[in-house]
Amino acid sequence: MRAVGLRARYRLSCRHLGEALSLSGAIAREQTVEAPPGVGGDRLQARMLGRIERLEAERGRGWLARIAYPLEATTTELTQLLNVAYGNVSLMDGVRLVGLELAPAVLRSLPGPRLGIKGIRSLVKAPARPLVSAAIKPVGLSSGGLARQAAAFARAGVDVVKDDHGLAVRGSAPFAERTRVIAEAVAGANARTGGHTAYFPNVTGPLDTLEERLERVGVLGLAGVVLCPSLMGLEALRRCAAGPRALAIMAHPSHAQTAPGRGEGIAPDVLLGTLYRVAGADIVVYVNAGGRFSWPEETCHAVNRRLREPLEPHRRALPAPAGGVNVADAGHWFGRYGPDTMLLIGGSLLAQRDLEGAARRLVEAAVRQEG
Amino acid sequence: MRAVGLRARYRLSCRHLGEALSLSGAIAREQTVEAPPGVGGDRLQARMLGRIERLEAERGRGWLARIAYPLEATTTELTQLLNVAYGNVSLMDGVRLVGLELAPAVLRSLPGPRLGIKGIRSLVKAPARPLVSAAIKPVGLSSGGLARQAAAFARAGVDVVKDDHGLAVRGSAPFAERTRVIAEAVAGANARTGGHTAYFPNVTGPLDTLEERLERVGVLGLAGVVLCPSLMGLEALRRCAAGPRALAIMAHPSHAQTAPGRGEGIAPDVLLGTLYRVAGADIVVYVNAGGRFSWPEETCHAVNRRLREPLEPHRRALPAPAGGVNVADAGHWFGRYGPDTMLLIGGSLLAQRDLEGAARRLVEAAVRQEG
Repeated sequence: MRAVGLRARYRLSCRHLGEALSLSGAIAREQTVEAPPGVGGDRLQARMLGRIERLEAERGRGWLARIAYPLEATTTELTQLLNVAYGNVSLMDGVRLVGLELAPAVLRSLPGPRLGIKGIRSLVKAPARPLVSAAIKPVGLSSGGLARQAAAFARAGVDVVKDDHGLAVRGSAPFAERTRVIAEAVAGANARTGGHTAYFPNVTGPLDTLEERLERVGVLGLAGVVLCPSLMGLEALRRCAAGPRALAIMAHPSHAQTAPGRGEGIAPDVLLGTLYRVAGADIVVYVNAGGRFSWPEETCHAVNRRLREPLEPHRRALPAPAGGVNVADAGHWFGRYGPDTMLLIGGSLLAQRDLEGAARRLVEAAVRQEG
Repeated sequence: MRAVGLRARYRLSCRHLGEALSLSGAIAREQTVEAPPGVGGDRLQARMLGRIERLEAERGRGWLARIAYPLEATTTELTQLLNVAYGNVSLMDGVRLVGLELAPAVLRSLPGPRLGIKGIRSLVKAPARPLVSAAIKPVGLSSGGLARQAAAFARAGVDVVKDDHGLAVRGSAPFAERTRVIAEAVAGANARTGGHTAYFPNVTGPLDTLEERLERVGVLGLAGVVLCPSLMGLEALRRCAAGPRALAIMAHPSHAQTAPGRGEGIAPDVLLGTLYRVAGADIVVYVNAGGRFSWPEETCHAVNRRLREPLEPHRRALPAPAGGVNVADAGHWFGRYGPDTMLLIGGSLLAQRDLEGAARRLVEAAVRQEG
């Protein structure tokens, strides 16, 4: 018996069992020995090749193939896990990664969320109700302008104020200046209201100065950061989460290249729900149904499920639906997704004349769910 | 006049001009201010929004939209360039990035290839002919087994012997052991034949120990490495290329999630041809026409063009078609792609009984192109 490192489920865009069988075999080979039969010896190939465990027709959609890969091929390294689950086959047409089951040895080697849902709740002193987050933007605004938005959100009692993911290291609100000014503004508002708003700056940017930015976040006494794993590499997220600093990480899906219903790529729940979580995200932002993106609600539930399901030894992560959610619909979404949800609202808040009032209504919608 | 940071061309899967116009407008907003009109002020929005410069119908394929983004939004940071060119819209259906033109200020801020085609040629002492590379594999083989393959390739005069991208840091041929044993084997063969075969180990793996691996490559006197930018993040490639070590970088496309003909994602020539190059790849591996992948030859020519086209101040990079190329067809492909090509052959060589003889025939096919 060889130890399994991961099981992947692929959706294959093909019609007949024969094609599905031949494509599954090609995947099992491509992702492991990547050489014709015999190369390296038959015994070695039997040890290393992916094994087709199930082939199942999906009405009108093609075939689902489940392939088990040996731990000896996957190792427990995150880059190699990705390489085996969806490496070269990501260059093929008609092969989509729709499921991923990681072996206990692999799960134990990955950091997972450091704080998880409980830790985030304790950070913002909200033990049971749904949470709310607001984005400060747009790119182009000065640090002072962003700080005024952040202060208004903090006065309203928003749980997490986050940098827009488009606020880079440079630009009109450069990282060092912006984080100082905004951290002060939020701390000032908290001091006046007795509130616990956290400010998460966006640390996405050059790897060689990432440590400096994380250091600065610590010096400013901030509890968390925003990071775009698909822009920086999932490995950069893992490294932050596994690092020495106990920061909450809100992962933003920019450049994730995932959407429901495509014939290729990684399904949203696998990428954002499982991979972002095991790599260390405490909060995962995704684009909500009914917003600017056309994701169906079913996909959002699937992401939520993956973030919250038991996955020993990892903590549960908090889903943060975003992307054009209206303040007025907050109650509706809390009802749909349950209390372990952080609703992230950006543009729809900022478009209101009375920013603080609008944010307060959002917070009230969350508080109402408690009762 | 605002300074432009980049121009992106998107293929939009929609039928009518009205839809194309509205989708382009949504992209120009999503990728910059990401907020409704008015937020941040009209003047700021006029400064920051992407500007639609062209809309053009493509027979049977939808619309092509060209959008110019201001330098103030893109900055010159690689992660932010990606974020603006293909960030949130990567989560939308029907939006594909098919063209990317970076402004001179942006190009100057990126490392590009350190050696380029000329540097690689001088490394392997082959000033004019096409080049050949061979992969050692499969995963599961011991370091000694891999070293025997490498030695045979070196005796045959292969220009670059590369680790399979599936050889991780751990596994049955762990990085430290494998690089030592293989470097010795290749150096020994070179000493006997007077040849100049280079060995490029795969350094893909955890970021926190990447420096150690690069250091080790230097200590062993090796001239280059294999790195998978889409597994580690394009930023990891940039960092290696911009770092202190003068190593050649062969970029492998595992997990690149690109293929011709899809409605979403990044077109192969943009990702592998432009982005991998400006981020610092000297050699770019892609899956050749007529191999295990179904890429048409036209796509391969498009990648070649991007790697070799003038792109001041950057050196030209070397295309390395791979993925099921037969030794017997080497001459054909050199004829199609010209001398500034490195043919990468793995499985089809390793499947031969006489490895060294087969590799020699490959080298001879390259040498014949000279005359």
